[in-house]
Parts: sequence; C-alpha cells; structure tokens
Amino acid sequence: MPKKSSPQKSREPSVRALAGTVFITRQVHFNSAHRLYNPTKSLAWNQKQYGMCTNPHWHGHNYVLEVTLKGQPDPVTGYIMDLARLKKVLHTAVVDKCDHRNLNDEVDFLRGIIPSTENLVIAFWHEIAPRIHLPARLHCVRLYETPRNFAEFFGPAHH
Amino acid sequence: MPKKSSPQKSREPSVRALAGTVFITRQVHFNSAHRLYNPTKSLAWNQKQYGMCTNPHWHGHNYVLEVTLKGQPDPVTGYIMDLARLKKVLHTAVVDKCDHRNLNDEVDFLRGIIPSTENLVIAFWHEIAPRIHLPARLHCVRLYETPRNFAEFFGPAHH
Amino acid sequence: MPKKSSPQKSREPSVRALAGTVFITRQVHFNSAHRLYNPTKSLAWNQKQYGMCTNPHWHGHNYVLEVTLKGQPDPVTGYIMDLARLKKVLHTAVVDKCDHRNLNDEVDFLRGIIPSTENLVIAFWHEIAPRIHLPARLHCVRLYETPRNFAEFFGPAHH
Amino acid sequence: MPKKSSPQKSREPSVRALAGTVFITRQVHFNSAHRLYNPTKSLAWNQKQYGMCTNPHWHGHNYVLEVTLKGQPDPVTGYIMDLARLKKVLHTAVVDKCDHRNLNDEVDFLRGIIPSTENLVIAFWHEIAPRIHLPARLHCVRLYETPRNFAEFFGPAHH
Amino acid sequence: MPKKSSPQKSREPSVRALAGTVFITRQVHFNSAHRLYNPTKSLAWNQKQYGMCTNPHWHGHNYVLEVTLKGQPDPVTGYIMDLARLKKVLHTAVVDKCDHRNLNDEVDFLRGIIPSTENLVIAFWHEIAPRIHLPARLHCVRLYETPRNFAEFFGPAHH
Amino acid sequence: MPKKSSPQKSREPSVRALAGTVFITRQVHFNSAHRLYNPTKSLAWNQKQYGMCTNPHWHGHNYVLEVTLKGQPDPVTGYIMDLARLKKVLHTAVVDKCDHRNLNDEVDFLRGIIPSTENLVIAFWHEIAPRIHLPARLHCVRLYETPRNFAEFFGPAHH
Repeated sequence: MPKKSSPQKSREPSVRALAGTVFITRQVHFNSAHRLYNPTKSLAWNQKQYGMCTNPHWHGHNYVLEVTLKGQPDPVTGYIMDLARLKKVLHTAVVDKCDHRNLNDEVDFLRGIIPSTENLVIAFWHEIAPRIHLPARLHCVRLYETPRNFAEFFGPAHH
Repeated sequence: MPKKSSPQKSREPSVRALAGTVFITRQVHFNSAHRLYNPTKSLAWNQKQYGMCTNPHWHGHNYVLEVTLKGQPDPVTGYIMDLARLKKVLHTAVVDKCDHRNLNDEVDFLRGIIPSTENLVIAFWHEIAPRIHLPARLHCVRLYETPRNFAEFFGPAHH
Repeated sequence: MPKKSSPQKSREPSVRALAGTVFITRQVHFNSAHRLYNPTKSLAWNQKQYGMCTNPHWHGHNYVLEVTLKGQPDPVTGYIMDLARLKKVLHTAVVDKCDHRNLNDEVDFLRGIIPSTENLVIAFWHEIAPRIHLPARLHCVRLYETPRNFAEFFGPAHH
Repeated sequence: MPKKSSPQKSREPSVRALAGTVFITRQVHFNSAHRLYNPTKSLAWNQKQYGMCTNPHWHGHNYVLEVTLKGQPDPVTGYIMDLARLKKVLHTAVVDKCDHRNLNDEVDFLRGIIPSTENLVIAFWHEIAPRIHLPARLHCVRLYETPRNFAEFFGPAHH
Repeated sequence: MPKKSSPQKSREPSVRALAGTVFITRQVHFNSAHRLYNPTKSLAWNQKQYGMCTNPHWHGHNYVLEVTLKGQPDPVTGYIMDLARLKKVLHTAVVDKCDHRNLNDEVDFLRGIIPSTENLVIAFWHEIAPRIHLPARLHCVRLYETPRNFAEFFGPAHH
Repeated sequence: MPKKSSPQKSREPSVRALAGTVFITRQVHFNSAHRLYNPTKSLAWNQKQYGMCTNPHWHGHNYVLEVTLKGQPDPVTGYIMDLARLKKVLHTAVVDKCDHRNLNDEVDFLRGIIPSTENLVIAFWHEIAPRIHLPARLHCVRLYETPRNFAEFFGPAHH
C-alpha cells in the first residue's frame, strides 16, 4: 500500500513517495537504408540466405526504437529518469548516428556487423548502456524494423 | 500437448480443457489534466527539474491504461476472468476517478503524490489489486502518458 | 561490449559477430468467426456467463497473432530465424487453418475447445512449437482478439 | 480572420464565436460475423466470386465505423453536435444492432443485402441520416472491415 | 502520363518533372489542458451542456494536428514545400504556443474562444495560413482530440 | 432509402441491391531505399535543399500505399472491385517493382524522377490507372513516407 501521510496539523506542503520498482520506456524513430549480406560469402549464398533483403542497391526502413529503464521513482522528483533527457541520450547514442544514414556503410559502431534487427538491438544496447547512470538501469532495447517485426535485447547478462 | 479427448461413443457434448498459465490484458483510457511539481521545493527548482511539465496552469494527456492478469483458464468457462468484468473493475478503481479530472487536485487516492507516470502506475496498482480475486492475480499495470512513453509496474514484490 | 575486430592488415572481408540472447517477434493476422459457449451447460448458463459473446449466430474478429522466438544471432547470418520463414510456419500452423473460418466448427486442432483468447493462445502454442527448431526456441504466443484485449502464453513450463 | 473582440471596458465575460464550416468525426467499433454470398447464385459461382469470404460457416471482423458531420460551430456551445450524443446515435442506429451479431442473419435493416463493406456503408448511412438533425448534416460514413481496407459513402446525392 | 525523356545522346544528367496537383500532409502533436464552458452562462447550464468536459479543475489531451497543403511539385526540387520547414511553421504557429499549456488561459490567439475541437481547427487555420506562401496553399487543418474524435476545416471559403 | 423488397410470396431467394457511389480503399506496403537529389545541381545545392535526405549513401522507409477506387456496388456481387484482386493489381503495378529496392536506381518507371512523396504518388497513379477498368475508377493514390507525413494525388484532371 502506498505510504499514508499522517494527518497534517501544520500547513506545510508535503509529498508522498511511492515505493516500488518501475519500468519506464521512451520511443524514438529514425529512417535508414541497409542491406543484409555476409561479405565473406558468395553472392549466391547471400541471395539464397537473404533473398531480396540482400539487394546490393539497398532498401530501407522507418525504424522505431523503444528503450526501457528500470528503477525506483525518486521520492523528490517522482522520476526514475527524466524521459526528455532519456530522449536526448537515445539521440546521441543511436538516432543521430543512424537517421537518414546507411547502416552498413556509415555508422562506425556498426562496422562489420550484418545489420539484422537481432544484431542491431545488441549493438544499440552497447551504445546506450554507458550513458545510463545509477540508480536507473538499462533494462531492454526493442527495435521495430517494421510494425510487423521487432527484436528485443535484455542485456548480455540475460539468458 | 493439449489433453486429447477420447473417442466419443456417446453423443454427449464435451469440452476440452487446456492447461497452462496465461496472461490476459485489457485496455481502457481516460483524459486528464496534471502538472509535475514538488510543493516542498521552490518554483525555480520545479522549473529546472520539470521544464514545461510544471506549468501551474496545467497540461493534459489521453492516458491509456493496460492491466494484465495471470491465471489458468477455467476449464468450464475458458476464462481467467471475464474481460468485460475486468473493464468494470478498472473503471471503478481508476477511470471513473481520473477521467476528465485533474490528477493533482481531484483524485483522493493521488493526494500528495507527484503524478509522474512512474508514481501513477504504483498508485493504480494499489487501487486495482484489492479488486482482483483468486484464482486470477494482478500481474502488471502499464500506463501510456503518450504513445511514445509509458511506465510498467509488476507489483511491490517485484524487483 | 561487442567483440572488437583487430586491425585488418589483409583486405579480406570479415564479419563481426555479436553475442547475446535476443527475442524476435513476427506478427500475422486472420479474420474468423467464433462464439463462446460450453455445450455441456444450459443456454441460460451460457447467456449469463458470456452475454452477447455466446450468440449462436456467431460474431467475429480480426485476430492479430504475434509470436516470439528466443535465441542467439547466428554469427554467419545475423539471424535467430529468417522471419520470412517464420511467417510461413505461422501460416501453416495457424493462419491457413483459421483465416476466414469458424473457430468452433472448422478448425480440427480446436475441436471441443471453448475459443476464448486464453484457450486459443495455448492451442496455438502447441501447433507452432513442433515447427520451431533449435537453436531457436518458441518463447511467447500473443493473440489480440481486438486492439483492446489480448492474451499471452509462455509455454507449458512457465508458471 | 477570427472576429476580434473589441477592448472590454466592462468586466462582463464574453465569448468569441468563430465562423466557418467544420467537419467532425466520431469513431465507434463493433465485432460481427458475416459471409459474402448471393443466394440467387450457385455455390460454385459464389466460391469463384468470393473465395474464402463465402465460407458458409462464417468468418468475422472487428469493424471500425467513422461518421462525419458537417456544420458551423454553434456560437454559444462551440459544438456542431455533442460527440457524446453522436456516439449514442451511432450506437442506437448501428452498433447495438450489429455488435456481436451475424450481419447476414440477425440485422433487420441488412436483410437480403450482401454485406460487403460497400453495401454496409450505404445501409448504415440510411440508418444514421434520419437521426441527424439540422443544423448538422451527415457528410460521410466510413467503415473499416480491417485496418487495411475500408469503404466510404457521402450520401445518395453524391456522385 | 509522365513526361517521357527523349533518348539521351549526351551523358548530361537530367530530371523528369511530373505534372499534377498533389496534397501533402504533416503531422505534429502537443499535450494540453482545457475545459469547455461558456462564461456568459450559468454553471448549471455548462454542466448540462458539457457534462464532465466542463470540469473547472481541467482535463487534458494529447492533441494530434495534421495540416495539408496543396500545390504542384516543383520541377527542380520535387517538393510542394519542404515538410521539415512545414513542421517548423506548425511549431511556430501552433505547437509552441499550445504544448504543455492551458488552452483556455494561456494561449493569446485562443482568448475568449470555447476550445472545442471545432473552434480550435478554425483558430489554428488562421494562425497557419499567413505563414504558407504561394505556390503552396493551405488546404486542410485536421485536429484529433483523441484517436476516436477529430475535426477538419478547409478554410473560410469552403462550404 | 435502400430499395425495399416487396413481400415475398414465393420462397425464392433474392438479393436487395443498394444504390450509390462508394469509395473503397486498399492498403499495401513496401520497404525501399531512396535519396532526394537533383543531379543537374551541385552537391552544395542538394545539401542546402534536402539536408540529410540527400545522403549519397541512401536512407529508407517503410512506405504505406493506400489506393481508393470509386464506383457503384455491383447489384449481383456487392463489390465495386474485389479488393483481393485490387491488392494483386497494386503488387503488379507498384509493390513488386519497389519493395526491397532502391527507388532512384532500380525502378524503371521512376527513372530520372526525384523520388519525393509528391512525385511518387503521381508516378504510381500512372502505373495503376491503366489497370483499373470500368465501371470502377481510380480516385486517389495516398502514400505515407512515414506515419507522420504523406501525399495524395487525385489524378491529372483534378485541380
């Protein structure tokens, strides 16, 4: 039960803090080109493995990224983390590097990675995690390649 | 594997029950005004902490509330809980108190609480939980402040 | 941290593999008729239990099915499973049997089951699981009866 | 330009009216079973014409209905029509008759009509129009059979 | 038919222009508090007219604003208007004045107006129109108060 | 009013036809890479005009295409056009040529066109229109580049 405030005899303002572990999520988006191919394999192998997704002339997506943090609401602010600040963190860590860019060729932290949604959520996690400071913890990175398919990563310690 | 029905020699109707723990979720919505501020702090502190969210003249949201229960489908009904009844519970517990209202000033169970999404999901949990009866269990309260940001609470026992 | 590639002296192409457990989800949809009723009970009992959902003349839904797999991205492909192939699996296992069909009367694997969303996710799990092969694992079946209500099942071993 | 209020020497409250023709839209939803078939034709003809949509065991949809009215905002209320009242009109005219029902067999005003989305919007128009009173005018009935397909009707006078 | 390019003997780059009138739409959003009431009427009148929407302690919405322009794509740029620039125009004209604000009390261009969705689209039109320059023309202002209800205004000349 | 059927003395099945002009819309989607640039202009001009949208390494989008036809429901079928067939037409005319492709380099009917959303809707119209046969008429092509921006074209005769 939330902590009850005792009857206030004085007229001093007060704030009731609520206890518990809460998860907060912020959504951002970016539009990028990519292709799926393994450069150590033949064109035929890539064609068979990825079909149209290996088009050497690229295709693209409106990616939607949702990042979840875990923590306890600060008794003074009511926040785990200011989501406006989280939005800036996500822009710095991921969006500004990926938006209107080619994920295979132009994003340094993605060099050499096949940019499947599975690999992207892991790579994004490692860009975001160093920017999240206690008491908040990074809990989940979710990436929608399209509204009908997405990947989620809960960190390297999660199995 | 679902329990197989034995070949029916008689023509009596029968029902196959399926075993397992399932999570069901119902979504409701309400439109409210609020502001984020800590009355024990100065106006300048609140301005710096919350920016425009501390506007003393209020702003508002179309909140979307999703509540998840956990249980086993009743072998006779196929339900964990009738979601039409859950909708009524959510209206009684939260929506009727918050819809078209001011969350800071008009909602008794929110008195003295900074109405951040983090605090709201905890407070809502405590309003809803006493109204959920075994064998169903309250599992998660999720609240969207906007389509791009939401909080989730899995109960005071969850860390 | 993702595995760093050592400086490349040769000009051979290479691929950086990323480690971690990832969850991928694919969404499909189908439109079906159904009714909720227990044929071992009286009409009055069903009317009281299910209200309009027991209409003997049927009603229907645009069902949305989301299926989540769990695994590690293959270092050669970047995939846990090709989602185009998962889409075919879901069509074979569930959609082709249920789309534009009557869930009570026409779907063999649903015979004798009250087609509540709770029961459907369990039944769907058992149709899909045998078609998912290691190293990928079936993690969750989520079914939306409408955008405002859905059920999730994480398998018979999950409590 | 909106009518400017002259500087107020008295302290009497006042209201500024804005002029113009505005369109307001309200969305409601209902879940129904139906099938597409022409009973004056053979089963083979229906199969060829409608494919799976002619399933004699029915299928169904979560229909979404959007109704648009046209008018000038009342200078006293700011409303063309109270949308809460329009919601009730739509429930009386359409939703209460169609929700959780079989559109082919149970809806009197649809008797003998092939319930394609095209025919439904016309039939719904004729149920709704008599309930809309001047100065508001019924402008459009839009019906989504699924999120990916819908029909619109602007009245019998519109070509 | 699009203008066919004549066979190019030279290797000079060229651009094919396409002719036609096109409508482009940009969506922005803002979160505000408001109440519906006519200050020239009694409290009882307002209660009867607006019900809960007249709550003197305010309620609020996540408003979604869609603005449509009409024009011919510029043969040199392919644009009617750069939508990034349109987004800035909409922020200057409407969003920056309304976001996180109280529509009744804090927005100068809304002074004295009952902030129904009908009145808001007219008022927004008059703020936006002077900022749209030929050859583009303002065609429609659409405002969603919630996902289930919205108003549209096509300008003072449209009946 | 819908045509009333005269009381049926015989037991022959009959069908009531409804009169009126109806608009039907089908939605399809495709994922593509593109860039906005005018090859007759300098790199600096393109940078200034298009900003990040001119990235020579491409970016991309999940495009959503909605096509509307206009007609009278056929009294025998209830259809203006079978939307399953319309979906095939749209796949042949547009989707199969654009999906997982580079709109600037790989789509013959887009050669030499700056692939802004404005130009794309005109080009798509001209691919689709010859495939729509009376009595149905092509009425509108709507293309979402992202959920927050889209273009519409009502044909070369519309001003």
